[in-house]
Amino acid sequence: MRYRIFMKSLLSSIQSPDDLKKLTPDQLPQLAEEVRRFLIDSVSKTGGHLASNLGVVELTIALHYVFSSPDDRLLWDVGHQSYTHKILTGRKDRFDRLRKQDGLSGFPKQHESIHDAFLSGHSSNTVSAAFGIAEALKLSGSDHHAITVIGDGSFTGGMVYEALDNAGQSDANIIVILNHNNMSISKNVGSFAQYLSQVRSKRGYHRFKKLVHRTLAHIPVAGEPLERILTSSKSRLKQVIYHSTFFEELGFEYLGPINGHSFAELLPTLEAAKEYRGPLLIHVFTQKGHGYPFAEKNPGAYHAVAPFDPAVGLKSEMPSPSFSSAFGDALVELAKEDDRICAVTAAMKHATGLHPFSMEFPSRYFDVGIAEQHAVTFCAGLSAQGKLPVFAVYSSFLQRAYDQLIHDCAIEEQHVVFAIDRAGIVGEDGETHQGVFDPIFLSSIPGTTIYAPETYEEVALYLRRALYQTKGVVALRYPRGAEKPQTTLCAHSLEEDYCYQEAPNASCLVITYGRECDMVRKACKNHSNVSVMKLLRIHPLPEEVIQLVKTYRLVLFVEEGLKIGGIGEQLRSASYEAGFRGVFRVLAIPSEFVKQGSPDQILTRYHLDEAGISAALTSLLQEAADEGKN
Amino acid sequence: MRYRIFMKSLLSSIQSPDDLKKLTPDQLPQLAEEVRRFLIDSVSKTGGHLASNLGVVELTIALHYVFSSPDDRLLWDVGHQSYTHKILTGRKDRFDRLRKQDGLSGFPKQHESIHDAFLSGHSSNTVSAAFGIAEALKLSGSDHHAITVIGDGSFTGGMVYEALDNAGQSDANIIVILNHNNMSISKNVGSFAQYLSQVRSKRGYHRFKKLVHRTLAHIPVAGEPLERILTSSKSRLKQVIYHSTFFEELGFEYLGPINGHSFAELLPTLEAAKEYRGPLLIHVFTQKGHGYPFAEKNPGAYHAVAPFDPAVGLKSEMPSPSFSSAFGDALVELAKEDDRICAVTAAMKHATGLHPFSMEFPSRYFDVGIAEQHAVTFCAGLSAQGKLPVFAVYSSFLQRAYDQLIHDCAIEEQHVVFAIDRAGIVGEDGETHQGVFDPIFLSSIPGTTIYAPETYEEVALYLRRALYQTKGVVALRYPRGAEKPQTTLCAHSLEEDYCYQEAPNASCLVITYGRECDMVRKACKNHSNVSVMKLLRIHPLPEEVIQLVKTYRLVLFVEEGLKIGGIGEQLRSASYEAGFRGVFRVLAIPSEFVKQGSPDQILTRYHLDEAGISAALTSLLQEAADEGKN
Repeated sequence: MRYRIFMKSLLSSIQSPDDLKKLTPDQLPQLAEEVRRFLIDSVSKTGGHLASNLGVVELTIALHYVFSSPDDRLLWDVGHQSYTHKILTGRKDRFDRLRKQDGLSGFPKQHESIHDAFLSGHSSNTVSAAFGIAEALKLSGSDHHAITVIGDGSFTGGMVYEALDNAGQSDANIIVILNHNNMSISKNVGSFAQYLSQVRSKRGYHRFKKLVHRTLAHIPVAGEPLERILTSSKSRLKQVIYHSTFFEELGFEYLGPINGHSFAELLPTLEAAKEYRGPLLIHVFTQKGHGYPFAEKNPGAYHAVAPFDPAVGLKSEMPSPSFSSAFGDALVELAKEDDRICAVTAAMKHATGLHPFSMEFPSRYFDVGIAEQHAVTFCAGLSAQGKLPVFAVYSSFLQRAYDQLIHDCAIEEQHVVFAIDRAGIVGEDGETHQGVFDPIFLSSIPGTTIYAPETYEEVALYLRRALYQTKGVVALRYPRGAEKPQTTLCAHSLEEDYCYQEAPNASCLVITYGRECDMVRKACKNHSNVSVMKLLRIHPLPEEVIQLVKTYRLVLFVEEGLKIGGIGEQLRSASYEAGFRGVFRVLAIPSEFVKQGSPDQILTRYHLDEAGISAALTSLLQEAADEGKN
Repeated sequence: MRYRIFMKSLLSSIQSPDDLKKLTPDQLPQLAEEVRRFLIDSVSKTGGHLASNLGVVELTIALHYVFSSPDDRLLWDVGHQSYTHKILTGRKDRFDRLRKQDGLSGFPKQHESIHDAFLSGHSSNTVSAAFGIAEALKLSGSDHHAITVIGDGSFTGGMVYEALDNAGQSDANIIVILNHNNMSISKNVGSFAQYLSQVRSKRGYHRFKKLVHRTLAHIPVAGEPLERILTSSKSRLKQVIYHSTFFEELGFEYLGPINGHSFAELLPTLEAAKEYRGPLLIHVFTQKGHGYPFAEKNPGAYHAVAPFDPAVGLKSEMPSPSFSSAFGDALVELAKEDDRICAVTAAMKHATGLHPFSMEFPSRYFDVGIAEQHAVTFCAGLSAQGKLPVFAVYSSFLQRAYDQLIHDCAIEEQHVVFAIDRAGIVGEDGETHQGVFDPIFLSSIPGTTIYAPETYEEVALYLRRALYQTKGVVALRYPRGAEKPQTTLCAHSLEEDYCYQEAPNASCLVITYGRECDMVRKACKNHSNVSVMKLLRIHPLPEEVIQLVKTYRLVLFVEEGLKIGGIGEQLRSASYEAGFRGVFRVLAIPSEFVKQGSPDQILTRYHLDEAGISAALTSLLQEAADEGKN
């Protein structure tokens, strides 16, 4: 530490990539060290993504040193590895508000900085975006590059392949930097990951190839014809020998593999890339968590962290109970009795609660990589053959598989269960991760059923109902985190579509589902004569609920989801169709993207907290009273 | 022809794969000939997919001859190449009702036959499904295979790669048969297509490899060490030399390439495949349209045909005007004035009307292959760099890119125009191709605007408005086919969100959009005192429209789309929220998948024809009159 006191800080002098370019190459390692210290200090205070960012410190510095953002466009896939990029582009002072309401985003955002070329909160999208940018640069007569840094984990997403296949044929200046660290969030799966680990030995192979050439040159008779064939037979051997990587077969020039922590390897490679015209892939090995021993040892744990003491590292605690673990445990119990049950995840074993299942039933557990489309259709295939597949997935990531839900599952009535985690407001990750679309897109699909359990007990109950008493596509949705303290309004049997607490002489009914139930009950305590209903089956809407609505004059529907086309509006529409003629209000999220903040802050923002609901109720009752007077 | 009279018909004896197995191998070419005749005779009468089916006659016969459906599971990608499969599995007599209402489906359907393992109306889904089926077979202790026949065109879809990547690591009995014919519907694009064309020379390479070995064996000193390296260096050279195809790198054993019209090559290859355990890819070359000279010469034209005379072939007519061509022509006109405009298609140049654009502005025209996800994000990249991208795409295929619309376009307010073709009822292709979801999934996305032009003139007008007077994600949706005769209720300026024809003393308002306008106007002619409104901007709903609704006691919304969460229900919900207290009916498609039939038949099925709308109107007016009496 004394070392740092005497050295002049380089980082403090850097407000832009131009400042960075004033350093000499031999100053870059010190800068990297300073950035790394800053990242550890800062993220350990605020929480955020750590291991991935420690892995790309040198790579990011080298990129900004060699290329010229924003003329050259830099993309990050997934975008949570962009912290060093943010530090170098004038946003260092905002790291105390990282991922907080109105603070710095944890992802690159065009709206945040001119240096952020494209958003990537969901994996595997940036090769497509970079190719679009590169083609646009070309059309505008620019020689600059579109450059995306993409982890090998993101390479399991099919979009990357679609984009490589398309871009490989072009002459656009796109550079794909494969940031190879063997991790998604968990350890990578899939053949491609295996393939890449073999490519590591390619440099050995190139040395061998030289040896062959040299050896053949010394052979008097056979050597020359062999040499000739090796060098002239373009259509045959050359494709195998010279175009030997996957990427070259797709039309990309290939550079690498190089050590992503060595400026001595990074700088000349990137300089060469800068001069190159056309699609280029650079294969860079990095270590997740590099330079911070705790994170090097356990990069998965340091992927995304809450605040912690950097001197001692994360405390190794048993994960506390959550909806995810409640689901995972319930699934294990059911799977003990029924060997048709299979569990599927898209690279989210731990976060979706499937780790116990994977240990107990390895042959029925499938981690398909970051590939939600494939996951859904794979489930449909299992179902077509009589299995009972359960796909545990975050709401926002299931968006990737909307067509597969319709086409591969619903049309032929495949029985597939979707355990939708992170439903509703998610929080600090911001717009890309909020689970607010699934009630709308799932309810648009004919034959689909959606359950919204409020408690762990209900998760277990409705998982059973989903598996054994529901046909076709069925979703179980529950929020991030833990359940609220138990309440009286709970389902106790598989048959219940809703729970209903009728107040004496009530003229007003408040309806809600999921996590909002707790808020609604608290808000309603201050109002007498208000009945409360919790929906457990939010689609299709139970006919009985519509009939009950008709017995009220005032209805308030509270929904932690988007309003337009949402469940509240659907019930309102159905109620008026059925003859309801009272006042039906919907309190939900307006048609906008939900920016980052803590879940509580966000619920308050949209008046979905106790105070907001209470105010909406007061206003509704007051209005009705005024109307009554007239 | 005389030849056929004297030969005993083999085809007539085949009602199931078991019957097929009774033939001797040397009878199979005659059977293929008979199947081919039947296909040409039958499809030329009913219309349907022809060229792709002619290409897989021998392959299909060989598959059913060697494997045992339904114990072995056969999949077809895309499923319109399954006609021979249907013929051999007892459905020959139903070909007179191919693709007709209540008739035989043009795609494999589990609900139609036990021999149809999985539906594939959208491309690239079957490797995932086959892998699910193969894993399920394995879990059930079965040795049987899941086999998918998939065209090289379908290989541009990223799902295939996700599935290969996942399946390649397994030991499941999945066989992927790459049906290599160089076509999607148009000529294939992309690097992978180029790569495959090189693989054709692989057999030459294998011969060369033997030569090298033989040659090296004769070299006294250097030969042996080289040979040793060639055969022992598993981690280095072997991967390059032996595992030289893309598929092997992904973990699949590779067989081929073979001639898909030669039983002499097909039968032993498939016999070997049947004995193989684990993931296997068989590379088969076929010719689209094989055996029918007209189709061989012009497979694109014979991809999907209307009835024609097989003796003379298709008449070469100028394509008649359609919404697609109206859009394409309008885009060319705009692009002449503005070089920022780019056009993107996912392998649908002709069908989406982009052919003239591709001829006129080749540098601004992008065919990205069957890769809708990539297409959308590629457009977002173009937009991020200041271009004006227009993606022309069928409604049902845009479903593939729901997450990309949200994540890559809408969150950062990228200005991308979606020209959504085949919006609404499409017809004979059935459930997989109806464009009934887009109003719901698009309107769920914050910041999105949706226009629904009714005429060619309006297509041009609202395309201009979409490009220049609308921000963010904007869609223009129009149906398959031609416009209806011009009417009085037309938009004439860019500003109009709706057109409104107020009847004197009207108490009832009928609202609709798109193709239904014509039906609605006809139906309303029989009813006096009924006002008619055509919506041109269906999302966000114009506030003025809601205010107009409030001036009526009776409202009927007619929608060629799904009812739950649709535009009609959204307007109903918004109207009651704004204080409307009359009766608001929505006539739309109930929550079910729309089965095949002609568009007119389907509209009649859902009472969306003149008679149905008129009846709904009568009922609404009558009810109101009755209510008035009480």
